Amino acid sequence: MDQQYSSALLERAVDEFSKLPGIGRKTAMRLVLHMLRIDVCKIDAFTDAISTLCHDVRYCTVCHNLSDEDVCQICANPARDASTICVVENVQDVMAIEHTQQYRGLYHVLGGVISPMDGVGPGQLEIESLVERVSEGGVDEVIFALSSTMEGDATNFYIFRKLMNFSNLKLTVLARGMSINDELQYTDEVTLGRSLVNRVPFTCK
Amino acid sequence: MDQQYSSALLERAVDEFSKLPGIGRKTAMRLVLHMLRIDVCKIDAFTDAISTLCHDVRYCTVCHNLSDEDVCQICANPARDASTICVVENVQDVMAIEHTQQYRGLYHVLGGVISPMDGVGPGQLEIESLVERVSEGGVDEVIFALSSTMEGDATNFYIFRKLMNFSNLKLTVLARGMSINDELQYTDEVTLGRSLVNRVPFTCK
Repeated sequence: MDQQYSSALLERAVDEFSKLPGIGRKTAMRLVLHMLRIDVCKIDAFTDAISTLCHDVRYCTVCHNLSDEDVCQICANPARDASTICVVENVQDVMAIEHTQQYRGLYHVLGGVISPMDGVGPGQLEIESLVERVSEGGVDEVIFALSSTMEGDATNFYIFRKLMNFSNLKLTVLARGMSINDELQYTDEVTLGRSLVNRVPFTCK
Repeated sequence: MDQQYSSALLERAVDEFSKLPGIGRKTAMRLVLHMLRIDVCKIDAFTDAISTLCHDVRYCTVCHNLSDEDVCQICANPARDASTICVVENVQDVMAIEHTQQYRGLYHVLGGVISPMDGVGPGQLEIESLVERVSEGGVDEVIFALSSTMEGDATNFYIFRKLMNFSNLKLTVLARGMSINDELQYTDEVTLGRSLVNRVPFTCK
């Protein structure tokens, strides 16, 4: 069959939808048929939102987070603690940490982790700009908040070597251990071992 | 929080995506961040395909299938058997039957089934236009190919009453019975009973 559907327009829309990750042809068809049922002005709002985002999006020149301005709302906020920088892999990680409402410092988005298997070297990441930010002074602490994977650990180590010679700079990494609500017997042995080694004084908070 | 993300454009695009059925905010975010990574001209192709479809789509004036022209490719095809009309619920059903490659007649898309619970009465469906098509002559058989549900059966019965008085018109319904590859012991009793009652002569095809 050179054409699966009765309408070439439908075929094209389904094709485009099914290029998105995790969306097959059946889901694409379901979404497209849904769009045919709703009001055309809602479709215009949808396509305009995506088009505007992709054409006009910018990245913060300081922390490389997604932003509508040259400097993002977090970096521009004077209430945030500019002496602490949290190093994360990507934009989602910034959101995840913001959602905890436990962090009032700034961020630095690397844009990935060092991964020779995927052809990602340190040069493709925003590591040099991090070193520059630190060398400009005013930074007391850099928190490594990368994924707890081999690639994340390698990246942590690479950045650690770049920053270790700055005097009076505290380098910290997120605590690893049991998740909240985890049952001890089902926790994997590596995590449980790390939880034991890194045990902290008990407080009644 | 009045704004969840660092970019209002991002927020808007995620909002729009998560209005689609079966897409939550996490999936919407994943799709939007994917779109930020790909080329802008691909985004334009995506939004243009959807926009064009929703603005320019038409329905076949004969069978009410989705179409790019006034009359769809199936109705306009002289190689198809115009004396047989297959009555289906929606556009997806036309595709499902076309995929079997077992049917060479025409279709009639009702646009739904009679469902008092959802407020759908016979007047909202393309039933009158079906009766008109049949009364114009040249139709030998109408195949009821609706879903095997209570609503589908009620709709079948309603249309049957409308068409039963046409002389020389064969009214047929899709066979119900065991699915191909079904194991007998796991087939539900209603289906198995129907399979028994409607048994057909054995052929070595």
